[in-house]
Amino acid sequence: MLKVSILSIGDEICIGQVLNTNAQWIAEKCTEIGTEIVYHLSVGDNKERLIESLKYLEKSSDVIIMTGGLGPTSDDITKPILLEYFSDKLVFNNDVHLNIEEFFRKREREVSKLSLSQAEVPSKCQVIHNNLGTAPGMVFYENEKLYVSLPGVPYEMKEMVVNYVIPILIKEIEKKHESVVKFKTYHTSGIPESNLAELIGDEREFLKEGETLAYLPSTKGVRLRIGVTGKDFSTCDKRLSEIEKILLNKISNFVLPIENKELTETVCELLKGKKKTLAVAESCTGGMLGAEITSVSGASDFFVGGEITYSNWAKTVRLNVNEKTLQEYGAVSEETACEMAENVRKIFNTDFGISITGIAGPTGGTPEKPVGTVWIGLSGKEKTFAKKFIFGWSRNINRERAVFTALNELKKVLVE
Amino acid sequence: MLKVSILSIGDEICIGQVLNTNAQWIAEKCTEIGTEIVYHLSVGDNKERLIESLKYLEKSSDVIIMTGGLGPTSDDITKPILLEYFSDKLVFNNDVHLNIEEFFRKREREVSKLSLSQAEVPSKCQVIHNNLGTAPGMVFYENEKLYVSLPGVPYEMKEMVVNYVIPILIKEIEKKHESVVKFKTYHTSGIPESNLAELIGDEREFLKEGETLAYLPSTKGVRLRIGVTGKDFSTCDKRLSEIEKILLNKISNFVLPIENKELTETVCELLKGKKKTLAVAESCTGGMLGAEITSVSGASDFFVGGEITYSNWAKTVRLNVNEKTLQEYGAVSEETACEMAENVRKIFNTDFGISITGIAGPTGGTPEKPVGTVWIGLSGKEKTFAKKFIFGWSRNINRERAVFTALNELKKVLVE
Repeated sequence: MLKVSILSIGDEICIGQVLNTNAQWIAEKCTEIGTEIVYHLSVGDNKERLIESLKYLEKSSDVIIMTGGLGPTSDDITKPILLEYFSDKLVFNNDVHLNIEEFFRKREREVSKLSLSQAEVPSKCQVIHNNLGTAPGMVFYENEKLYVSLPGVPYEMKEMVVNYVIPILIKEIEKKHESVVKFKTYHTSGIPESNLAELIGDEREFLKEGETLAYLPSTKGVRLRIGVTGKDFSTCDKRLSEIEKILLNKISNFVLPIENKELTETVCELLKGKKKTLAVAESCTGGMLGAEITSVSGASDFFVGGEITYSNWAKTVRLNVNEKTLQEYGAVSEETACEMAENVRKIFNTDFGISITGIAGPTGGTPEKPVGTVWIGLSGKEKTFAKKFIFGWSRNINRERAVFTALNELKKVLVE
Repeated sequence: MLKVSILSIGDEICIGQVLNTNAQWIAEKCTEIGTEIVYHLSVGDNKERLIESLKYLEKSSDVIIMTGGLGPTSDDITKPILLEYFSDKLVFNNDVHLNIEEFFRKREREVSKLSLSQAEVPSKCQVIHNNLGTAPGMVFYENEKLYVSLPGVPYEMKEMVVNYVIPILIKEIEKKHESVVKFKTYHTSGIPESNLAELIGDEREFLKEGETLAYLPSTKGVRLRIGVTGKDFSTCDKRLSEIEKILLNKISNFVLPIENKELTETVCELLKGKKKTLAVAESCTGGMLGAEITSVSGASDFFVGGEITYSNWAKTVRLNVNEKTLQEYGAVSEETACEMAENVRKIFNTDFGISITGIAGPTGGTPEKPVGTVWIGLSGKEKTFAKKFIFGWSRNINRERAVFTALNELKKVLVE
């Protein structure tokens, strides 16, 4: 297997100011294509240690992927050190120069001198174009090893990994004719990890030596990942589909119907396919459900809009929730959730209305309605209902879980 | 300075299945007491690599803090490897044994044989009591270095770090009379990294040898972090305030006014302090601005609600945007942004209204209005205005940048 190590560069990671999400993300992407991750190493903006790190990692790895230290400011040391490490010199790269100028022009800003210095790149490297920023990525082939240097800004780095680095690694794997690992992931929704595990039972009964089943829970739902090893990808695919049959037999109700689509995208596809429209009414989530739905490009085909009613005033005046309902049952109640969902559907003249009203916390809980209590309402042309959920004590996790639970309720109605 | 490295052990970290929050948390705690973090290294459940890692880290560190691999199952390799590494043997520890029995008794569960094996510990180590689980922590003093092994379960690990490891490290620092490092971070908004760097100029003009200035950009804004070294914390504090004066002299306009508060919290504090209220009108962000504001607990003090108007229909019917305005100037225009902001303020009867309308992408751009074009409107009781921004081509980054740019516009008005 192709051996990959990840080297994160920056004081902010080293001193613990920033969580190293880059290393985890890169490791996940590299694991998906069947490479083996040897190490993650993080080092501060320190020349000697960065050089030591390169020397250490290259002993056991075929590929070293570096992130960080590529900005235009003086604390960014990666480029000068790679220059020294590979006894290289800087050359002017016109494509990078044009990219930087274009970057500033598009934003109607003056090009800064510092930024232009990024057009100077080591002569031995292959440049990775930065579509989202000004620091180019760099690839060096030296000593039969691959050294990749990427910006530390997550979205710039991710774009480069997906479009440039992963294809390069796949070519390396093919070149070496090594055994490969392949993974397949299933998105589930509406079932906790432990219940899913009970349905699936002991995976050793249907997996062979070296095959893996992993449970990956998040607020969106639990993903299941199967991993198999084989001499090539098509052998792996065959084995994966054998395992899939067994797995789906146990949990098909909870596996999302469209391959490789998470819950939000699934709901969007279902709405689009059925030509149904949607409006939302949000209290404790404050717009998060609308933001999640509109994170999917093309949401305007089915999403008309909604009301953020963070006050009782807004609930009554903007959503016509009956004042009596609020007085008698409270804002966090079945009655209010139903009125919100039904009224937003009628006001926006859509097929479906969803509402969320709850106590996100950390304050505002009572013995009857503890922090984490959320009512989710769903109104269609035939019926309106609301369900109560009790999540946890963390404000933002409660809000996220409310959003994905609401989407799961809509998904269930849409696949009925 | 006392040099600390962190070694995380476990396949789940290495393959990127789990984010390494332990390393970040430990680094933060160790930095607070003035140690220097040399490396974070993560390695899978692999004997040879773990031994190589120890050898590598001890070359440059006084202390190695390991987490993970201490469970009772066969994939937990840390204890046997440390035993081999220090040529040690296992001895029965009665305190650990009693702790394990107590742990199971409290939970009304049978003590498992596997768990009891955890009462066997290396003879050379000092045991760290596990108050929350069954795997004891271990401290070895060997070769004038400190090796600490902790469980990977975050809450067990954290309890041990706070109550045992940090006190040990403080004693080491005192014993060696070494210097400490202290950091201070400034949140800025509304200015890109390169422009900030130009305003600040060459930091070597006001920083001494060993002092650092780091730029940490994100969609929320750029954070600036100064690091200084001194014989104790009060010496560092003095020096930090000297540097602060110089720095604020250059960039005070862009530094957020409340210490340690990021942009969203700053805006919330300012609104609360000035007893002003807010409503939002969102098109391309679909509720993200409202979600961001309500991520702060207590937002109901000033945030009333808002309109998600993802369609022209919703803009005219729910926000009274003039149909002529939409026809003549389009939904993404100064005129529409102003009407949205002003009308949402009036409809919700608040002091301020913010609007966002733009082309988030990836589709929908035109030569005149390319993807990334966003108009942000702000309406107060005295005036209403809108500004155009051109971000990039990534849908979700454009949306995030729109949200934080809108908050920055409001901040500017609030501090005027």
